[in-house]
Amino acid sequence: MKFSLDCYPCAVRQTLSAIRRTGMEESEQVNAMQRILQCLIEMRPGAAAPEITAQAHALLREMTGIEDIYQSDKEKSTQEALALYPKWKEVVLHSSDPLESAVRLAIAGNIIDFGPLDSYDLEATIQRVMTQPFAVNDLEALRIAIDEVDEILYLADNAGETVFDRILIESIGKPVVYAVKDAPILNDALIADAHDAGLEGVATVISCGARYPGTLLSYCSSEFVERFRQAQLIISKGMGNYEALSAEEAAIFFLLQVKCDMVGTDLGVPKGSIVVKKA
Amino acid sequence: MKFSLDCYPCAVRQTLSAIRRTGMEESEQVNAMQRILQCLIEMRPGAAAPEITAQAHALLREMTGIEDIYQSDKEKSTQEALALYPKWKEVVLHSSDPLESAVRLAIAGNIIDFGPLDSYDLEATIQRVMTQPFAVNDLEALRIAIDEVDEILYLADNAGETVFDRILIESIGKPVVYAVKDAPILNDALIADAHDAGLEGVATVISCGARYPGTLLSYCSSEFVERFRQAQLIISKGMGNYEALSAEEAAIFFLLQVKCDMVGTDLGVPKGSIVVKKA
Repeated sequence: MKFSLDCYPCAVRQTLSAIRRTGMEESEQVNAMQRILQCLIEMRPGAAAPEITAQAHALLREMTGIEDIYQSDKEKSTQEALALYPKWKEVVLHSSDPLESAVRLAIAGNIIDFGPLDSYDLEATIQRVMTQPFAVNDLEALRIAIDEVDEILYLADNAGETVFDRILIESIGKPVVYAVKDAPILNDALIADAHDAGLEGVATVISCGARYPGTLLSYCSSEFVERFRQAQLIISKGMGNYEALSAEEAAIFFLLQVKCDMVGTDLGVPKGSIVVKKA
Repeated sequence: MKFSLDCYPCAVRQTLSAIRRTGMEESEQVNAMQRILQCLIEMRPGAAAPEITAQAHALLREMTGIEDIYQSDKEKSTQEALALYPKWKEVVLHSSDPLESAVRLAIAGNIIDFGPLDSYDLEATIQRVMTQPFAVNDLEALRIAIDEVDEILYLADNAGETVFDRILIESIGKPVVYAVKDAPILNDALIADAHDAGLEGVATVISCGARYPGTLLSYCSSEFVERFRQAQLIISKGMGNYEALSAEEAAIFFLLQVKCDMVGTDLGVPKGSIVVKKA
């Protein structure tokens, strides 16, 4: 999905939220905002929506020297999710359809997102998503696909959400390669965040080689792109990955919550929807 | 109140809403957005919040030749409010405190605002505001002030809201000079809008001489400024007028709904509050 006119207000809101997190002085904050507006003006036509976020965060790193302004938020999110792990692991284990429950839980975890949202209520979201009808429901196709393949490539989204990805991976019972971002960008999961969430015990954790909120293949490592092209089945979490990959020809299933009108329009579903969509 | 860091996302959102209303082609819309972002970058330090709106709207007029992109919205708002006039006029007349009821109604009408809001529910807002506690309550001081003066200068805000201003003016029973904007800006009331709302029968309608969402005195006509300086009592409606005049030394009572966090912070009350505040 390309950056569109409706992305401007959201990009500026996200930018302000990121600027605030740096703790810069007010005059420096105004300076940063002006420089990021300049990036917005100069953005190349057809740029992907996640590119402006990457550019804004690069500028903030340059201005502040802070490598990861979301680090403490990510750690908190992971701890909060880990505290819920035992309870919801039990629910999935004793569910009449453990795969569906685990998919729902993984989608519920997608609420942990400091891009389109500034705050979230994780418990309330899980309660909602466990029973909310899917707006797009390719769950049965996903179930069949899982049965047929030897290995799954799983594209991670945010730190904390990772804990619920872990429950889904444990439910799948097939080898999984779990791909995270290469360096800090928004609250997206890195290898360290996957480690904190306990992913290394249940999957092979790798980096996609890129630093964008969304797996933009043209920026990923050639090693990762090769793995992507050869994957029998890809599970892709979140809006950023959907925006980056919705036009790709691959055996992808997108699992996400719709947190922005533009993604909702593209999917033909309202904001707030939960989606399991076969590419 | 000055334009602050928190105003950037809101300014871009308002700008997009205005751009959409022009009906320009998509590529022209992107061009307009980029030009308005440039205005934001170049804004002089200490500019008042309403100035960027005025600049953006001037640019859109220049690009499209459309003098008033909110004209049909304003006409619809006025008709909607006029349809409610008979019912609420009766409620005020038979109220145990007609002045308080009319003040509440005038504040409820302040929901009609295409700046901070894109849509509103007028009836639901009236029901809420008729009983909601005031977050700042200088109503008794206003009552005394009204009794003591010979004439009131009333600073209008939006078209449609004008109808409820009319009920308040009818309740006051003293000569009122009703000041509107000089030319189209957002959905702010002009002389024609005041006429449509029936204001000419109950007040002397004048122009403030300026074209800003908010009565910025440095842009008003000298005739208006003189009238403002000599006014015994000024009733100021809405956030724009509050932002423009909160630092003025004058006998002003601000009547408004708080629809933005920045104004809320300035007043020390939460968003959603209703306010009668003596300057």
